[in-house]
Amino acid sequence: MPDPVTGLPVLGIVGGGQLARMTHQAAIALGLSVRVLADEPADSAAQVSGAVSVGDYRSIDDLRAFAASCDVVTFDHEHVPGVALRMLVADGVAVRPGPHSLAYTQDKQLMRERLEALGVAVPAWRTVETADDIIAFGDTHGWPVVAKARSGGYDGRGVWMLDGPSAAQALVSQGNIRLYVEQRVAIVRELAAVLARRPSGDLAAWPVVETVQSDGICVEVIAPAPALTPELAQEAVALATRIAEALDVIGVLAVELFETADGLVVNELAMRPHNSGHWSIDGSVTSQFEQHARAVLDLPLGDPSAVAPYTVMVNLLGADTVVGTPAERLASALADPRVRVHLYGKGERPGRKLGHVTVTGDELGDTRARARLAVERLRGTG
Amino acid sequence: MPDPVTGLPVLGIVGGGQLARMTHQAAIALGLSVRVLADEPADSAAQVSGAVSVGDYRSIDDLRAFAASCDVVTFDHEHVPGVALRMLVADGVAVRPGPHSLAYTQDKQLMRERLEALGVAVPAWRTVETADDIIAFGDTHGWPVVAKARSGGYDGRGVWMLDGPSAAQALVSQGNIRLYVEQRVAIVRELAAVLARRPSGDLAAWPVVETVQSDGICVEVIAPAPALTPELAQEAVALATRIAEALDVIGVLAVELFETADGLVVNELAMRPHNSGHWSIDGSVTSQFEQHARAVLDLPLGDPSAVAPYTVMVNLLGADTVVGTPAERLASALADPRVRVHLYGKGERPGRKLGHVTVTGDELGDTRARARLAVERLRGTG
Repeated sequence: MPDPVTGLPVLGIVGGGQLARMTHQAAIALGLSVRVLADEPADSAAQVSGAVSVGDYRSIDDLRAFAASCDVVTFDHEHVPGVALRMLVADGVAVRPGPHSLAYTQDKQLMRERLEALGVAVPAWRTVETADDIIAFGDTHGWPVVAKARSGGYDGRGVWMLDGPSAAQALVSQGNIRLYVEQRVAIVRELAAVLARRPSGDLAAWPVVETVQSDGICVEVIAPAPALTPELAQEAVALATRIAEALDVIGVLAVELFETADGLVVNELAMRPHNSGHWSIDGSVTSQFEQHARAVLDLPLGDPSAVAPYTVMVNLLGADTVVGTPAERLASALADPRVRVHLYGKGERPGRKLGHVTVTGDELGDTRARARLAVERLRGTG
Repeated sequence: MPDPVTGLPVLGIVGGGQLARMTHQAAIALGLSVRVLADEPADSAAQVSGAVSVGDYRSIDDLRAFAASCDVVTFDHEHVPGVALRMLVADGVAVRPGPHSLAYTQDKQLMRERLEALGVAVPAWRTVETADDIIAFGDTHGWPVVAKARSGGYDGRGVWMLDGPSAAQALVSQGNIRLYVEQRVAIVRELAAVLARRPSGDLAAWPVVETVQSDGICVEVIAPAPALTPELAQEAVALATRIAEALDVIGVLAVELFETADGLVVNELAMRPHNSGHWSIDGSVTSQFEQHARAVLDLPLGDPSAVAPYTVMVNLLGADTVVGTPAERLASALADPRVRVHLYGKGERPGRKLGHVTVTGDELGDTRARARLAVERLRGTG
């Protein structure tokens, strides 16, 4: 049922985090009504939206009540149980991306199997049950070994770097985590190919970016990836396109890639706006948030071209100790007139993603230095 | 009292129209809490904001209750009575711009007098009481004569083009409108100089734009004004700067100008985000809406530089007869991937400002054609 005032479709977002917040912000321009299913009224998106339902994303009753007021339902995170999603689909709800696609981000082992079947390069991996399984894998493929939880991980959680047999035993002795292990790939750098796809099949891909991680958390993104060869850029987009089509992804798909001496290897997938696409708000004609809304509503996709030679995005992670009030720190960051600040309205906590900063420019070094300085000023550590 | 979660100041906007809507949208990025005092829950800004008070902007009680939850109060329109604004200031509320500045947009005759005293070129004008006063003015300065209501006019309302004595008599016979009359200036075109000013005095001016009016309503804006000489551009910004400083304007000031064979003449002032600045959302590093929020909160101002050689903004005005559903028309406009759509969530009515479209590009003709076509598609007349 379209919005009674505007006659435009109502977009429901399950989850009230910063991705929903920025999608709502983008959707305002299109005149779209966004409804958010939040855990709490103080959630990042719930603070700034006029149409918030508070409920439990694991409850089919809450999901059904929410979906009844939406034309299309999409997501801020991957955590809605597949069984609940399938029930919504059976009810006739337009769930985008659908559970048949989301299954591959909800179970990383399934994703690995599917990508291998598609002939996509992934790190050597295997399912493990016991410490001996891990040790056998490490002895074959070399240590350290990367152990991953099959589901629920993000921002470095659910990933363990195991140096050798004793680390393997310690992890397994923690108990009931469903694990698989991967070879640690020798990488040149990390890249991400991000695109959006409509139900009609139309696709639009942003320039391939370089992502910089620290402790498994994305800290910086450079768009486009500096000195990436046109061949590799094309290969990355082709890879993401193949995955989007094979997995029938609707909305934004982010493919995190390892650039290795031998070519591209797929690391992770996300089927929603992703940290590696935040630069697009200020750096592209069409942001990933607007594009996600357009894609899931089956509206024509916008131009993903960059608006500047370089865009650098730096994440704001909560600091251990902070100097200055929030207003003082914001003013300090904004003292550079080219700095674009994005704050998520979240309470401060060490290591928490509180916002990001973007700077566009003609020269990478200066652009990056400005973005980093602004984040230090926002953090209150500088 | 800053927001309890973010520690950042709370910005109150009196009025729930599209200017408040777009200011809220911009403020989301800065992590700022925006509160809106709307006439009704269905108002343009109220639809998309999480913090809406419904009340009467003419009621000092409603204004006081609203201001109590805000750190700074600013405006979506000029219609809050000066006496109420002065009472808020006496209460200690940070009202920006202040009543001493807003007085000049609330009473156009006062504005004319003040600008003349500043030595700023304005059209020849005089206060009139009777039809004979108008006729005497017309016989001296030539017909037609422009009659304006001293207050309350906007978008062509409160402005009358009088061909001769009988039109003057007809207008005056309508009764109790406080009028003044102006010489109709022979213009080359209309321009606007838009800037923002902080309480500290810092100023930032966008490139000077050309505005195109139809029946007194802005229909199109081209940024920057094509083929404007650097001297005239500089003069326009200097003029706006002088006015902003003399009138102590805080926030965005738009100065509507006539370009004549003899130079620049000031037509109107607005002390808030203005239609002539809508292009800046997509066409400038810092939009007028973000800049207004930064200015009234005394945060450092952002870079007002253009991001493309040309930006064309075309207003979407409600059509008399419409073909297609709102969703179909939106999809049709978005079929051009470079088109940026901004809808205000307002019910359709002939002539009503329902949204705008922006296109950025390297070549003016193509950029303008795309923007105009998109608006025709959104209107449903094409």
